[in-house]
Amino acid sequence: MNLPDKVDVVEVCPRDGFQIVKDFIRTEDKIEIIKKVIDAGVKYIEITSYVHPKWVPQMADAGDVVDEVKGYAKGKEAELIALVPNKFGALKAFEAGLDWVTYVVSASESHNMKNINRTIEQSFAELEEICREKTDTRIRLAIATAFGCPFGEEVPVERVIDMAKRGLELGAGKIVLADTIGIANPVQVRSIITKVSKKINIDMLGVHLHDTRGMGLANTYVAVTEGIRYFESAAGGLGGCPFAPGAAGNIATEDMLNMFHSMGVKTGVDMDGIFEAVSLIREKVNSPVVSHMAKVYNI
Amino acid sequence: MNLPDKVDVVEVCPRDGFQIVKDFIRTEDKIEIIKKVIDAGVKYIEITSYVHPKWVPQMADAGDVVDEVKGYAKGKEAELIALVPNKFGALKAFEAGLDWVTYVVSASESHNMKNINRTIEQSFAELEEICREKTDTRIRLAIATAFGCPFGEEVPVERVIDMAKRGLELGAGKIVLADTIGIANPVQVRSIITKVSKKINIDMLGVHLHDTRGMGLANTYVAVTEGIRYFESAAGGLGGCPFAPGAAGNIATEDMLNMFHSMGVKTGVDMDGIFEAVSLIREKVNSPVVSHMAKVYNI
Repeated sequence: MNLPDKVDVVEVCPRDGFQIVKDFIRTEDKIEIIKKVIDAGVKYIEITSYVHPKWVPQMADAGDVVDEVKGYAKGKEAELIALVPNKFGALKAFEAGLDWVTYVVSASESHNMKNINRTIEQSFAELEEICREKTDTRIRLAIATAFGCPFGEEVPVERVIDMAKRGLELGAGKIVLADTIGIANPVQVRSIITKVSKKINIDMLGVHLHDTRGMGLANTYVAVTEGIRYFESAAGGLGGCPFAPGAAGNIATEDMLNMFHSMGVKTGVDMDGIFEAVSLIREKVNSPVVSHMAKVYNI
Repeated sequence: MNLPDKVDVVEVCPRDGFQIVKDFIRTEDKIEIIKKVIDAGVKYIEITSYVHPKWVPQMADAGDVVDEVKGYAKGKEAELIALVPNKFGALKAFEAGLDWVTYVVSASESHNMKNINRTIEQSFAELEEICREKTDTRIRLAIATAFGCPFGEEVPVERVIDMAKRGLELGAGKIVLADTIGIANPVQVRSIITKVSKKINIDMLGVHLHDTRGMGLANTYVAVTEGIRYFESAAGGLGGCPFAPGAAGNIATEDMLNMFHSMGVKTGVDMDGIFEAVSLIREKVNSPVVSHMAKVYNI
């Protein structure tokens, strides 16, 4: 057992959770929810994505969200992240002065093609171009389907390791291993993290795990005992490609906080503050809140 | 890591799940669901309880359920269990020829008093009387609130150990540690199982864990790595005192099977068979199915 004093939480609901909500969430509501999350003490928060509104209309207000939230976060601890699918989006994010951008490449060729219509090689060529731009914004490389592919393609751990290495060589400041379809189990998480961390400094690694099959916190527990200190989650459990309304995708931030806090691991995040954000999500966002803690405490 | 080739699953939905359902479930529907679970290959199944119908009207048909299911289970692997709250119920269960009875004592005095209006000492006095009856039926002692009490009472692990020892001395064939309010976390589960198994042969121990706060499978994973081989769960995730409709109480059998199977641990239980039972529960029982796997596979 290897439990740390503290871990970092990356709140992704405003991007990963909101992007699949059909009804447009008013910009001022998004901003209000993000402010609640910042006030709760989250260190990292993914607030939007610079994608073409034709593909993700929900994120059409990225510029307005970033402008307002940047002002609010000034002097506070929160570091702001935006997802970017390509160099065009990255340049916008750099110009807006985000702290981080997330760039996603899938470890499955078939999933990468389906997701962003590129080969893994083409994705890395674009990442290389992005990294060549001189900027203060740091880069997170998210490796999607690192624990399994929805199209049955084998994802060798060696490929995950190669992609992580390549990302770091290009200058990424963090590598996030994502269980995109929520299929990972504790034995596999232990095995993959053990293997990857033999080749990659574990301080550079984070995980994005899903609770799709109820193993989200089991996998989180294994990851933290294996040395991971950087965990993504979504307030209310929104997002993460749930299969059906009411089904889980992303691990809910409040469920993850509760486990860490109950084990004596600090997160720096205030549970009541996250509950306030969840309450606002329930009120303003047309997507079911699916977390365990929200049900227990009737949030 | 200490993963076994196989674990045993104890299906408790027909007792723990059904007992809190307000609308009476027709006896023939209960029996049909139980038969599906038996056909799926579950080794142990708690099918009813011999409680006074004034307190739990849902279990008023215990005799009929047992008679029919006993006939069906003949020659099959399943061992049949009934819960009994007292000697009166135990004698009925012995007469009916159940394989096992479950007798519950809470490790929290205040919870035991609230639950069955007895002190722990009084509960053990009754258990002693029950054990004095000569019978082929074996006895499971379930220690409720072994991981925490809903009324804030401290539950020292030494008391849990003493109760387990006392149960075994009286002749119990299995001790089940129950996380009655779903408050256990992985660190605590590891700590308690380590301490208890220093004093009690671990083959005599089982666990009944809840998924109330999303840690059900995390705790299950820790328990199996610590040497537990006997796990209770409920098809569809019914029961286990959920706080609100749609909230989790008991770990769903299908979620637990999926984790074990995906880690290469056999259960002897066929997932499709459990899905058939869950499908029937959805059709016949007025209580929401809350498992992750049922949502993923649209059962």
